[in-house]
Amino acid sequence: MTIERPHRHFEEDLGLLKTRLLEMGGIAEDRLRLAVRGLVERDLGALQSVLTGDLEINQLHIEIDDRCFKLLALQQPMAADLRAIVAAVKINSDLERVGDLAVNIAEAALRYVHQPPVKELIDIPRMGVLAQGMLRDALDAYVRRDVDLAKQVLNRDDELDLLKSLVFRELLAKMAKDPSIINASLDLILVSRHLERTGDHATNIAEDVIFMVSAQDVRHKAETT
Amino acid sequence: MTIERPHRHFEEDLGLLKTRLLEMGGIAEDRLRLAVRGLVERDLGALQSVLTGDLEINQLHIEIDDRCFKLLALQQPMAADLRAIVAAVKINSDLERVGDLAVNIAEAALRYVHQPPVKELIDIPRMGVLAQGMLRDALDAYVRRDVDLAKQVLNRDDELDLLKSLVFRELLAKMAKDPSIINASLDLILVSRHLERTGDHATNIAEDVIFMVSAQDVRHKAETT
Repeated sequence: MTIERPHRHFEEDLGLLKTRLLEMGGIAEDRLRLAVRGLVERDLGALQSVLTGDLEINQLHIEIDDRCFKLLALQQPMAADLRAIVAAVKINSDLERVGDLAVNIAEAALRYVHQPPVKELIDIPRMGVLAQGMLRDALDAYVRRDVDLAKQVLNRDDELDLLKSLVFRELLAKMAKDPSIINASLDLILVSRHLERTGDHATNIAEDVIFMVSAQDVRHKAETT
Repeated sequence: MTIERPHRHFEEDLGLLKTRLLEMGGIAEDRLRLAVRGLVERDLGALQSVLTGDLEINQLHIEIDDRCFKLLALQQPMAADLRAIVAAVKINSDLERVGDLAVNIAEAALRYVHQPPVKELIDIPRMGVLAQGMLRDALDAYVRRDVDLAKQVLNRDDELDLLKSLVFRELLAKMAKDPSIINASLDLILVSRHLERTGDHATNIAEDVIFMVSAQDVRHKAETT
């Protein structure tokens, strides 16, 4: 084995790190989509595959963490690159938890589809689409260092919160009228909360992007003083 | 202003970083305790002060993040120190979210205490004590690099999950009998979930400690090859 010199493949390795983060984001999105589709279409196979398919994200999580450490340890990056790598460490954690949330959604959905439906599912799939879009845009904002796009993600979180409250209030009224649907209704409320939390992770990523880009200027200024 | 030389105050700065993390953990614990006490004692003042007192944790979050970046940028640490600082970045995020969860608990508690009590609160304060203890031990494990203590934290997460399920099942049965308590019961269910998530953050911290200590050996081995 050869020992690589610092800075030698730095740009390449950093590019690869970003690519892997995007891949992980894509997988997390797919798993969310599958979990929500499984719920709406009452597709046990889809839900089962979300429950058992967590391995890929978990492996990527370890691989990306490892890439970040190697870049930090061997390359000793400064300023903007340093912030991009530390942001990657945080984003990696967020994406892993989004993977966990997809599993949580599939678990609640699996309980739900074994009971009679309590309502037509319109707001929840809408929440799913919103959360996926926020996640995708937050990652795009990271790769492109696009603060405007990151700020758009933050704004869209309110919409997700609003839908969650709508779902909650509607189901609360239904449960009060018919206690036999309490169990099923709670599962839907849980799904909507998991989707809201997915949006929170997209928001975290967007905040990291804003911090990464703006703080870099601050740091840069300090360095040139 | 003077520009500090790399490695000059490194040990001191790293020690200070750890002290600040412990302080932040202590504040997060206090806020959890206050939120749960406010719920149990129906103390509006306590709950109000949790709702409005998030500033200190948020400021520490920014300060600690900044300390991590400066240590990474100016000191270019290797191996064990590098892992300790990256772990600090992650732990900092976890503690900030614990602070958010204390606010969430206080919000649900504030709704709850405006309604008639639905049950004697025994499991929920127990969950609070458990979650606080897990948090404290996870941070101690970080500072002392104590893998055994970190593993104990992981084990205690099951207890928290069990209590959450107990609370859930008990309230489900009560709601089914008396739909007028659905609202209040859901608030208690939410509090128990927030406490469980607090435990998840303690678990994250414990996992970071285990990874930090064990991976350091692996990295060290690679470096000396």
